[in-house]
Amino acid sequence: MSGALREARVHRISAAAPDDVSGLARAIEEGRIEPGAIVAIIGKTEGNGCVNDFSRGLATMALGRFLLERAPTTAANACLVMSGGTEGALAPHFSVFEVRDAAGDATAAGALAVGRARTPAVPPEQLGRAAQVRMVAEGVAAAMRDAGIERAEDVHFVQIKCPLLTAARIAEAEGRGAATATRDTLKSMGLSRGASALGVALALGECRPDLDFDAIIGRDFGVFSRRASTSAGVELADHEIVVLGMAQGWTGPLAVDHAVMADAIDIEPVRDALARLGVDASRQLGPQARGRVVGLFAKAEPGSTGNLRGYRHTMLDDSDISATRHARGFVAGALAGIVGHAELYVSGGAEHQGPDGGGPVAIIVERHTTGTTP
Amino acid sequence: MSGALREARVHRISAAAPDDVSGLARAIEEGRIEPGAIVAIIGKTEGNGCVNDFSRGLATMALGRFLLERAPTTAANACLVMSGGTEGALAPHFSVFEVRDAAGDATAAGALAVGRARTPAVPPEQLGRAAQVRMVAEGVAAAMRDAGIERAEDVHFVQIKCPLLTAARIAEAEGRGAATATRDTLKSMGLSRGASALGVALALGECRPDLDFDAIIGRDFGVFSRRASTSAGVELADHEIVVLGMAQGWTGPLAVDHAVMADAIDIEPVRDALARLGVDASRQLGPQARGRVVGLFAKAEPGSTGNLRGYRHTMLDDSDISATRHARGFVAGALAGIVGHAELYVSGGAEHQGPDGGGPVAIIVERHTTGTTP
Amino acid sequence: MSGALREARVHRISAAAPDDVSGLARAIEEGRIEPGAIVAIIGKTEGNGCVNDFSRGLATMALGRFLLERAPTTAANACLVMSGGTEGALAPHFSVFEVRDAAGDATAAGALAVGRARTPAVPPEQLGRAAQVRMVAEGVAAAMRDAGIERAEDVHFVQIKCPLLTAARIAEAEGRGAATATRDTLKSMGLSRGASALGVALALGECRPDLDFDAIIGRDFGVFSRRASTSAGVELADHEIVVLGMAQGWTGPLAVDHAVMADAIDIEPVRDALARLGVDASRQLGPQARGRVVGLFAKAEPGSTGNLRGYRHTMLDDSDISATRHARGFVAGALAGIVGHAELYVSGGAEHQGPDGGGPVAIIVERHTTGTTP
Amino acid sequence: MSGALREARVHRISAAAPDDVSGLARAIEEGRIEPGAIVAIIGKTEGNGCVNDFSRGLATMALGRFLLERAPTTAANACLVMSGGTEGALAPHFSVFEVRDAAGDATAAGALAVGRARTPAVPPEQLGRAAQVRMVAEGVAAAMRDAGIERAEDVHFVQIKCPLLTAARIAEAEGRGAATATRDTLKSMGLSRGASALGVALALGECRPDLDFDAIIGRDFGVFSRRASTSAGVELADHEIVVLGMAQGWTGPLAVDHAVMADAIDIEPVRDALARLGVDASRQLGPQARGRVVGLFAKAEPGSTGNLRGYRHTMLDDSDISATRHARGFVAGALAGIVGHAELYVSGGAEHQGPDGGGPVAIIVERHTTGTTP
Repeated sequence: MSGALREARVHRISAAAPDDVSGLARAIEEGRIEPGAIVAIIGKTEGNGCVNDFSRGLATMALGRFLLERAPTTAANACLVMSGGTEGALAPHFSVFEVRDAAGDATAAGALAVGRARTPAVPPEQLGRAAQVRMVAEGVAAAMRDAGIERAEDVHFVQIKCPLLTAARIAEAEGRGAATATRDTLKSMGLSRGASALGVALALGECRPDLDFDAIIGRDFGVFSRRASTSAGVELADHEIVVLGMAQGWTGPLAVDHAVMADAIDIEPVRDALARLGVDASRQLGPQARGRVVGLFAKAEPGSTGNLRGYRHTMLDDSDISATRHARGFVAGALAGIVGHAELYVSGGAEHQGPDGGGPVAIIVERHTTGTTP
Repeated sequence: MSGALREARVHRISAAAPDDVSGLARAIEEGRIEPGAIVAIIGKTEGNGCVNDFSRGLATMALGRFLLERAPTTAANACLVMSGGTEGALAPHFSVFEVRDAAGDATAAGALAVGRARTPAVPPEQLGRAAQVRMVAEGVAAAMRDAGIERAEDVHFVQIKCPLLTAARIAEAEGRGAATATRDTLKSMGLSRGASALGVALALGECRPDLDFDAIIGRDFGVFSRRASTSAGVELADHEIVVLGMAQGWTGPLAVDHAVMADAIDIEPVRDALARLGVDASRQLGPQARGRVVGLFAKAEPGSTGNLRGYRHTMLDDSDISATRHARGFVAGALAGIVGHAELYVSGGAEHQGPDGGGPVAIIVERHTTGTTP
Repeated sequence: MSGALREARVHRISAAAPDDVSGLARAIEEGRIEPGAIVAIIGKTEGNGCVNDFSRGLATMALGRFLLERAPTTAANACLVMSGGTEGALAPHFSVFEVRDAAGDATAAGALAVGRARTPAVPPEQLGRAAQVRMVAEGVAAAMRDAGIERAEDVHFVQIKCPLLTAARIAEAEGRGAATATRDTLKSMGLSRGASALGVALALGECRPDLDFDAIIGRDFGVFSRRASTSAGVELADHEIVVLGMAQGWTGPLAVDHAVMADAIDIEPVRDALARLGVDASRQLGPQARGRVVGLFAKAEPGSTGNLRGYRHTMLDDSDISATRHARGFVAGALAGIVGHAELYVSGGAEHQGPDGGGPVAIIVERHTTGTTP
Repeated sequence: MSGALREARVHRISAAAPDDVSGLARAIEEGRIEPGAIVAIIGKTEGNGCVNDFSRGLATMALGRFLLERAPTTAANACLVMSGGTEGALAPHFSVFEVRDAAGDATAAGALAVGRARTPAVPPEQLGRAAQVRMVAEGVAAAMRDAGIERAEDVHFVQIKCPLLTAARIAEAEGRGAATATRDTLKSMGLSRGASALGVALALGECRPDLDFDAIIGRDFGVFSRRASTSAGVELADHEIVVLGMAQGWTGPLAVDHAVMADAIDIEPVRDALARLGVDASRQLGPQARGRVVGLFAKAEPGSTGNLRGYRHTMLDDSDISATRHARGFVAGALAGIVGHAELYVSGGAEHQGPDGGGPVAIIVERHTTGTTP
């Protein structure tokens, strides 16, 4: 990476439907986005975020087809991470990450850095088990190398899209005499998210490497990553990994930091992270400050104790609405109360991502000193 | 009312289930609540808050039976207002309102005042129409008289439980040759809530009395009350009305004020109301301040424009989860972010209650100067 | 029992709501039902049939309160078994079982016999385990003795209402250092239903007594009862057991038989059972034959293989609607196609009740030869 | 059409997911399907069948892309009609309709005939109004001409995919000062289906041409088509029309007939239609007869009276599950009870398609006399 200077750019684009690529097309036509520079798209789509969420697949197919026309190489390599579920007033949108070559001094203070990787396909019987944890850890290390981030502490967000079990995949494994970690498809989403998050924790030194992960995944939520964000989807069998951090060798106005919410309404750490990034959030952000917050990426979950600060919640006992849907809408409200809008990335299922009932939050901000993005 | 001094007391009691009266029983046994002094119970129960929400009926039956044993007169007269829907981390609970005789100077500065009334049963064909508006307005005036509140500006909250249409009620009306305002039972809940809210607006002088309410209900959301909170339930055919305000002739540590949220995340007015009541909410309330906030009562709704501050939300297009459920969970998150817990009363369906997409919020606080409640 | 002759009467009463006792009240006022003779009420109520189904509790409370007024002894002893979930066109209703003293020859051919029993409360940590199986088996034997049924083959239906785990019950057990079979409340319903069904199988000699039930419950669905029907509800901690069969010592026009559906649309055995009972079902029953079918009681479940006769179904992958709800509505359609209406008892969750994906069906018919019921 | 002899072939292909085109690919590779001969694909996909059903769009995109590769002309012209909702055990599948040139005598007795057409895009403000009825009627006439069907009585099924209103489309119309028939997106689906069905009725002479359709659509369900099947989807703005009937000029083993169910369990007319087609359905079809029933296409709806044959159903009062989902699963059970499997096309929302609560059923059967399909 030495010598080459890069700039990461992030564009948040509203989506009128899962397959709405018009905003992206317009940004390309207007010269704001260079299709060949796209390395990742992280989106919120409006399905249920659970097993039978076809909005993710639809978005992935539409974006993939679009990129194939505009930038075939990008289409083959870009990470497309769609997280389903826009409960409450969450707004469906895509965050498009570009990496561009830049002129200037590569030894400068640094800026937002983006790296990515894919893992091999995980066999159904390894999903939710230690083998998946180690596979993901290797993927995270590869993505850090791709970003030129050397120290784990400079990583602020690791977004992973991981697979889940379907009835068909379970049958395939069982046909080979292999037993899967669960036969419950909805539950498999949680196990896959949890194992992936522990893979991040392992890669970033947030947990000891010699843990018995098989006994921890989905059970001991005291072990977790403070920077992982994982989403499960039916549309892939491997892992797509995107690492965000601060690194030398990168320039531009963008910076990233992160907070950890201890529970679903623990919003003061988010305010503090905004302050560290130079954004005053003592009251709800006004229009100008809002414009500088390019992206907020959070995880939400119901909390396995069945209560929040001593008061019972009913998310886990609701057989009509999945608990993950409840949690996304509720946490979205808490965060939107700070930011002043709800075009946020709040993703459900935060197993081993932050403490039980809480979750990591990453924030990308346009710094004042460097002027406006092009 | 002259000469008699009263004190309103409010007890927020967690509920382990809709029919959990154990907290109320304990409070009575421990002498904190005098059953004969109960005038109203406003509860959040954990059903879906829509047509087929049986948690409300179950709570009403359980509370009614309990009161019948402990205080027959109270049971016959107390307003039991159950609002279904504890989306997100909202905690099921009951707020028990007592009115006690008090010693002291009835001409003092005043305190929280509580009044109540019931209307006659509304015929199905009048539901959601001008006749319901006027019926409710008379009920609100009666409840103000009951509270000894003379000026409309001293009213801060009017909670109304109103009926809805069921297939059976529609059939009954049609059997008499009468047409109901709608044949859609879910929609009837909105019309009834809206007509009731306009009844409050009419009673409090928030709208002109000569409006064509038939043309406004459910259509022109520019006409609304800033202090109404209405909930529809299958378990009654009339209206139960509870008015909260500040009035002379009342004593005790409690005070009430209100705010109006312009949209689902317009939380600064709530902070300001807390400040007026002497509670600093510049950051999330800590344990001590939380203890002083006896009750927060808010309305939530999805906003008919389909977007929040320019970003599309999907609540109105979701055929799996009712939009009212989305809105409750989301607004609950925004408010819990301020208050620091989610044992709040957030009630869905805010038609004509605050501006489109927003809603009124009433807050009852224990004032510092008057010491602690018994 | 020798010498005493009894008559079982069954009244199917439509319910306009879970707490609608008006039909029962009318039947009593008109002399059709003797409140002191009621031994059991088996109802379908219109909740979701899952964890947070409050329609069952509401019906139980309303019926209990009603019986307490009319027949205090009955209220204390009658089994009230409410099964939630009226998907499709299933009609909410109550089947009221009376046992009356009768005149005549106790050694005659026999008729519908009804027996009942309750077990002790099952500790949360025993739920879904072998201890629950054995507790239920003893209860079934007690209910058979109550009915005077000596041979297992004369039993045609065993209805059991069993408890489930809630967050609170799990916490209570864990507070004592005891681990429950699952921490997933919805899953606990299936385990409790399955263990109860295996208790029936054990009592009726449908399985070997030395099986390792802990390893079978919820896993090996090849072990099952052909006559068990179990429903889980949050409103009890023990088991309510009702046994239906044919026995000497009973008189009257009613007879009972049963069929086992091998899968969700295996309806020919039901037709054959109707034929054995003297009802021609070669085409859909016409009004007269329909009137003779006093009650049809069936279990439904999605089938764990994810397909029906080689074609994939999506019930297990649907995160919006519980699979048990899908199964009830679908099986209800198949059975209503035979019977000609949908006021049927189709209860979800058929773990170990009939083969995987199928379930038992019991039918009570008024025989021609004995004339009409009073 | 004179002189040319055609053969319609129908292939029912199971789908493992909405975007599973592998079965179609295999049929093409094995020479069973000629991609250039495909004129229509009618599918059941596994979304909720309501507004936010993205399974339809995903299937349409996947099939469209596949056809574009294999047969560009077909891709441009084939009608792709995806109906969402596989409640109960309904199996997701595609029915692929081919039209091939055939050798033989064009004046022979006739066989299954297929015709198709598309209409112009319907402006949002015309949706659900008389203009849509007339637009569709012209489309049906065009499709009949395409099939060479001269007499309305020879038409047995008209499948139409019609558009719906979204928040965006409503806003677009209102931006032009035009008012849509409703602002409720879910409701718009019903209005569009109803207007389309009345278009069929108008084209086939099932209703008088001078009716005031604006007053009838969605209100007077006494006016209906006995052969229309309409589905609304967000993915199109015009209408896709496929007509099935019997006509000279067509050859091959396939024949079509139809029945009308008077309510959700009125299955005897379906049995009779099978008998007319030479399939004995006095008991559930066995494997061989099942193989001859190439396709069964039915409409289902809850029935606006709130009861089925005098017993109350709860579909219309269920705020957790859309009534159309209930109806599909229930009717699917009734029909699968006859046919012996559930890979059936049961489509919800039968407004003006058959009588209130009932619906048309079309059946395509392979006739004995003509031997097996290639």
